[in-house]
Amino acid sequence: MKSLEELRKEYEDYKARGLKLDMSRGKPCREQLELSMPMLDTLDSKSVMAAEDGTDTRNYGVLFGIPECRALMGEMLGVPADNVVVFGNSSLNVMFDVLGHAFHHGIMGGTPWCRLEKPVKWLCVVPGYDRHFGVSQYWGCENVCVNMLLDGPDMGTIEELVASDEMIKGIWCVPKYSNPTGNSYSDEVVRRMARLKPAAKDFRIFWDNAYGIHHLYDDNRDEILDIISECAKAGNPDMVYEFASTSKISFPGAGVACMAASAANIEDFKKQMNFQTIGHDKINQLRHVKYFRETESLDVHMRRHANILRPKFQMVANIFDDELFEIKNRGLVRWTVPKGGYFISLDVPKGCAKKVVKLCADAGVKLTGAGATYPGGYDPEDRNIRIAPSFPPLDELETATRLLCLCVQLCVAEQDGF
Amino acid sequence: MKSLEELRKEYEDYKARGLKLDMSRGKPCREQLELSMPMLDTLDSKSVMAAEDGTDTRNYGVLFGIPECRALMGEMLGVPADNVVVFGNSSLNVMFDVLGHAFHHGIMGGTPWCRLEKPVKWLCVVPGYDRHFGVSQYWGCENVCVNMLLDGPDMGTIEELVASDEMIKGIWCVPKYSNPTGNSYSDEVVRRMARLKPAAKDFRIFWDNAYGIHHLYDDNRDEILDIISECAKAGNPDMVYEFASTSKISFPGAGVACMAASAANIEDFKKQMNFQTIGHDKINQLRHVKYFRETESLDVHMRRHANILRPKFQMVANIFDDELFEIKNRGLVRWTVPKGGYFISLDVPKGCAKKVVKLCADAGVKLTGAGATYPGGYDPEDRNIRIAPSFPPLDELETATRLLCLCVQLCVAEQDGF
Repeated sequence: MKSLEELRKEYEDYKARGLKLDMSRGKPCREQLELSMPMLDTLDSKSVMAAEDGTDTRNYGVLFGIPECRALMGEMLGVPADNVVVFGNSSLNVMFDVLGHAFHHGIMGGTPWCRLEKPVKWLCVVPGYDRHFGVSQYWGCENVCVNMLLDGPDMGTIEELVASDEMIKGIWCVPKYSNPTGNSYSDEVVRRMARLKPAAKDFRIFWDNAYGIHHLYDDNRDEILDIISECAKAGNPDMVYEFASTSKISFPGAGVACMAASAANIEDFKKQMNFQTIGHDKINQLRHVKYFRETESLDVHMRRHANILRPKFQMVANIFDDELFEIKNRGLVRWTVPKGGYFISLDVPKGCAKKVVKLCADAGVKLTGAGATYPGGYDPEDRNIRIAPSFPPLDELETATRLLCLCVQLCVAEQDGF
Repeated sequence: MKSLEELRKEYEDYKARGLKLDMSRGKPCREQLELSMPMLDTLDSKSVMAAEDGTDTRNYGVLFGIPECRALMGEMLGVPADNVVVFGNSSLNVMFDVLGHAFHHGIMGGTPWCRLEKPVKWLCVVPGYDRHFGVSQYWGCENVCVNMLLDGPDMGTIEELVASDEMIKGIWCVPKYSNPTGNSYSDEVVRRMARLKPAAKDFRIFWDNAYGIHHLYDDNRDEILDIISECAKAGNPDMVYEFASTSKISFPGAGVACMAASAANIEDFKKQMNFQTIGHDKINQLRHVKYFRETESLDVHMRRHANILRPKFQMVANIFDDELFEIKNRGLVRWTVPKGGYFISLDVPKGCAKKVVKLCADAGVKLTGAGATYPGGYDPEDRNIRIAPSFPPLDELETATRLLCLCVQLCVAEQDGF
């Protein structure tokens, strides 16, 4: 290990380079965006604009989305088309609206949550997705942390909490290639989730299957059980809403989002949708169907994404292995090596995450804010950092990752005091 | 005037024809949808996808919309781009969300409306737009009717109500080519609206400028004052949200919607947007900008729409003139002759609207439900029928309109008793 002096010198050298790199968000990179450009050729002024049931996709209507797009998204999720509703471009917006429905209107005739005497509590698997936590916080929930373990959330704690407290109304889950840990829920965890016996009748699992087909490898993939059918088998058919989108498949700004749920849940949410909109963008739905049915299969398309992302994930892992090996052996740091998704989770020494992120920022590399993976931005141990390797080009990613490692080494050396 | 017997015979003849016509909603017709098809050629796989500020429209982000689309919508409304936020495809959805923000979060730090002891009251100009009334009803408002007069809503009543009752928090307005009357607010009405002195500090005018450039004629157009600047002049800069979309300009299912408001209102609503979404469909925003800046001007485009719609409006007016002339002279019916928009408002004899609509339905012509132009579907005089001439082809429109006139004649003859 290098001396503190050497490390400080190296850090000053980085600073002198005037870097301006961004690893803060899970954005697809330019090459990934290029992959979907042929989708823009699927519709032009000569195209037949009718859906398979004859509906003119250009006009008003069709609240749940055109049938073939419901089917496409259903196939992606392994859920029948009838259980799928297609929305606009943002699954986050759908989650926001479903929670709004629960707060204002109540789920299936239950008391609207905004009318309850006490605040609703919401389980947040940590580390997790900051925007999820923001949505439940916005609607007024008290976010309650539950730890992510190697095979999914700590189910023992969840089972106890939901069974004993009827103010716990829901949980955020990213079950596959989770944000930010990149690991997936085991079959046992999914089954235990489906078998929950919540005290609240209107408890709902918000199952954000954001990375369902976002594998990095052909031969080394995570697969998870279908939560919709598991819930049905467990006698809890209405306990889950599943969400997904093509944001990281086609275009992040211009994909299609969907919700899958039981017929009863869909019927219930329709009561809000009927007032909210006349229908979502069916032309974009048709564009997606044409591209992924006629031009390129989802599977091939996702392999192309993987070919761009894999080297980035591998580079970060390799640099971590090289640079943080000693510190890891001392038990001070750990990181995940995901087989898919968009993130790597790095735990630095306790009390150092904010410092590492600031050191990186001061040297021109923007990371996701320390604490962002916890509700309210408060990481009690101040140690988790979310690494988002997708956006920067490889050379920038290498620089940024090496700087990050240097900052971790610097923190450790300063703690060691030599 | 024909005898009751003759009219009944004619009605039975219509019935025997097995018609299946739909005049129920203000949907653009197929020819109108064709007008915008070249918009689909503006972007293809070879296109440069950057916005004018360099943003990649394909990726995440840009909460308020790309600058050039904000400018385009701003020009349409006569409002600076900085005061415009561009959303997804549905302005109704934006209104729904803004009302949700007020109910759940409160406007500019005010008490959230769902926390108030008494229900919020909402002014509804009648006859008006059923979906507006549905949104305020959904959020829990008590809808209060105010009459539409020839030059806009009854301002005297509105001034009195908003000044005296702090539970009145807002009003729905369609200021130009109003739905369904087709008339527009006079300058005096707009100014009085802007000068309102509401008891509620968080009172807001929901100004749905849905038909701002939807003229039928080149030389005979309504123009209204800009409410945003009038409110500012009157010392009420934050009292209004203006809404619009390209739903009836480009594609009803795949246009872009916007809100125009003061900087303070936009900043306030941003608090919700930040949690709700990462951004709306910027590719579709770019598509609209390219089409209306490079291919076809909005003005020329709207003339093409007018050329399709004008004969339909004129046909309905002519048939009404022919068939309902005598009944009109007796003061039993009246109708509007709009210079733009999508609707004609027909008042049939008191107590006859439901009957007329049912007679038409029984003969295979679907009209907008009687009462739909009033909150809760309750027209106290049961006399208003909204005519939507845009969708059916001319020959079908003629048949439907003649049947409608016959049904009105039949009702009158039955009332007359001979």
